[in-house]
Amino acid sequence: MKVDAYSHILPAPYFERMRELAVDPGALKRWLELPALHDVDERLRMMDEFGDDYQQVLTLSSPPIELLAGPSESPALARLANESMRELCEKHPDRFPAFVASLPMNNPDAALDELASAIDDLGARGVQVFTNVSGKPLDDPAFRLVFDEMARRDLPIWMHPARGPGFADYTTEDTSKYEIWWALGWPYETSVAMARLVFSGLLERHPNIKIITHHLGAMIPYLEGRIGLGWSDQLGSRTADEDYDRMRRERLPRPLLDYFRRFYADTALSGSAIGIRCGLDFFGSDHVLFGSDCPFDPEGGPMYIRETIRVIDALDVTDEVRDEIYQHNIRRLMRLPDGRA
Amino acid sequence: MKVDAYSHILPAPYFERMRELAVDPGALKRWLELPALHDVDERLRMMDEFGDDYQQVLTLSSPPIELLAGPSESPALARLANESMRELCEKHPDRFPAFVASLPMNNPDAALDELASAIDDLGARGVQVFTNVSGKPLDDPAFRLVFDEMARRDLPIWMHPARGPGFADYTTEDTSKYEIWWALGWPYETSVAMARLVFSGLLERHPNIKIITHHLGAMIPYLEGRIGLGWSDQLGSRTADEDYDRMRRERLPRPLLDYFRRFYADTALSGSAIGIRCGLDFFGSDHVLFGSDCPFDPEGGPMYIRETIRVIDALDVTDEVRDEIYQHNIRRLMRLPDGRA
Repeated sequence: MKVDAYSHILPAPYFERMRELAVDPGALKRWLELPALHDVDERLRMMDEFGDDYQQVLTLSSPPIELLAGPSESPALARLANESMRELCEKHPDRFPAFVASLPMNNPDAALDELASAIDDLGARGVQVFTNVSGKPLDDPAFRLVFDEMARRDLPIWMHPARGPGFADYTTEDTSKYEIWWALGWPYETSVAMARLVFSGLLERHPNIKIITHHLGAMIPYLEGRIGLGWSDQLGSRTADEDYDRMRRERLPRPLLDYFRRFYADTALSGSAIGIRCGLDFFGSDHVLFGSDCPFDPEGGPMYIRETIRVIDALDVTDEVRDEIYQHNIRRLMRLPDGRA
Repeated sequence: MKVDAYSHILPAPYFERMRELAVDPGALKRWLELPALHDVDERLRMMDEFGDDYQQVLTLSSPPIELLAGPSESPALARLANESMRELCEKHPDRFPAFVASLPMNNPDAALDELASAIDDLGARGVQVFTNVSGKPLDDPAFRLVFDEMARRDLPIWMHPARGPGFADYTTEDTSKYEIWWALGWPYETSVAMARLVFSGLLERHPNIKIITHHLGAMIPYLEGRIGLGWSDQLGSRTADEDYDRMRRERLPRPLLDYFRRFYADTALSGSAIGIRCGLDFFGSDHVLFGSDCPFDPEGGPMYIRETIRVIDALDVTDEVRDEIYQHNIRRLMRLPDGRA
């Protein structure tokens, strides 16, 4: 059995509502070209290629809800998304064993309410956040209670990249060319968000918090050495006006890499064997989850799944380890029955 | 024999002049804590640990000359740097077999003059550029002749990251915290610069141009799949208002990865075995060069050299391949005698 831990969908009632809201024309073009994204019959047909032992955990596709609706409308939009997701899971429990709740992050009080309601009443097995909230970084005190609550509930937080207007501003005329914002900007955003969460002390305060980073930790595994000897061991050497030594002693007593390895990461590297091997070496097999990024591939759905399975099947690991990556890790994180005796 | 293809120095006469110019206090603090950066006697003592079969190709340390001097003063500053570098190589030919020229890139005409003079008169075996010129990207037409001329001369261009004011603006208050600009911002800058050079058509026009990227290609190898199936095969799918298909047909007929693999890359990943293996798999052994980033390590010089050698010595490759990485590739690029029969 394979449980795809990171696949994207736009349930039809939510999709219809989205199209009425102001939306980037590039994004709209993309969605319309991908029927498996918003038409569940197309989605199920596409999944048939992988048989009965392939399932998807559903997360809502970009953009973040807070880019579609202001703080007074976003709670209702999140609710619509979560109710539509619940319906998909109820109708197709053999294909969609669980969904991840969306939150109105531009309204933190409502986000906490929706978190409780989506998990307790609708059965969501985690929540998704984006790497910034309309430009505010995730370590902003406004969002602290969301992370604390997910740690308390011992359920995972999926973290998806998003363009950061006013935060990491690579959306200038220059880098918006050639879709650099997507190819390199998103992984940069993910990496910066991971770093800011580390430096905020979140992973020291909650050593067992379950944060699932997209794209196998983005830049972090390849830069293991830079983060270790370069950053962790020399923080402050390039700065004249901050006492980072004291901050480290008080807030981050361990090497930075220890905290970065506490993240979880999916295998959504578009089928790169060299990348997946590197990321697996970095995070270890208990922190890597099979995830495909379906349906954003050149075939509109099956290609990333197929290519990612090809790479995982060829990994030089035991069948037990492969099985952890394919299903047991994500089941453990979501606290779903794992089918083992 | 090991020839370190990317080590940094500030020759004493240049360093004295730099200190008189306006300089970021964080950078100044850093330099003063690293005597092996600006004191050649300290540098040579530090190198003794690695014996007679370790040599360094010298490049000038950050910041870019154009951040220290305007277009009317930068030519003289570049000249001072290059003459001081030549002197170091002449005095210590067994330790420093070659140097890389600095250019006053904010004055492109003078940059072309200095390029010719540094190579023809001073014996430089290549030039160094930074990933942006005071915020202008390297594919700006102003710099085209520098790249064309280096391709014509068949000598390498070292490309070092630099903060991009107004280009990739991660230097906002938010990301300037915790030295994120250095740890993640620099690799992002390198990757964006590589991408822009690819999209400008440079590597299609000059298939054999020799551009040496720092930090083993930064984000590119780990994102191989994203660049391939994600970007190359879906360019334009996220954009409503540009005809990328036509641009690809006319300017970039090959898969994007083919162009990215035409870059060369040094092993300066601060001693990460998983990173170096991934980068070597991506670029291939004829495009990877031993480079240490000396002296910017926690010991102020020898540690990155030692750790990088440890990783390369342990690679599962033939001795011939190891020797290509350690010395023959960089000798071939610089067209220096390679000591082989």
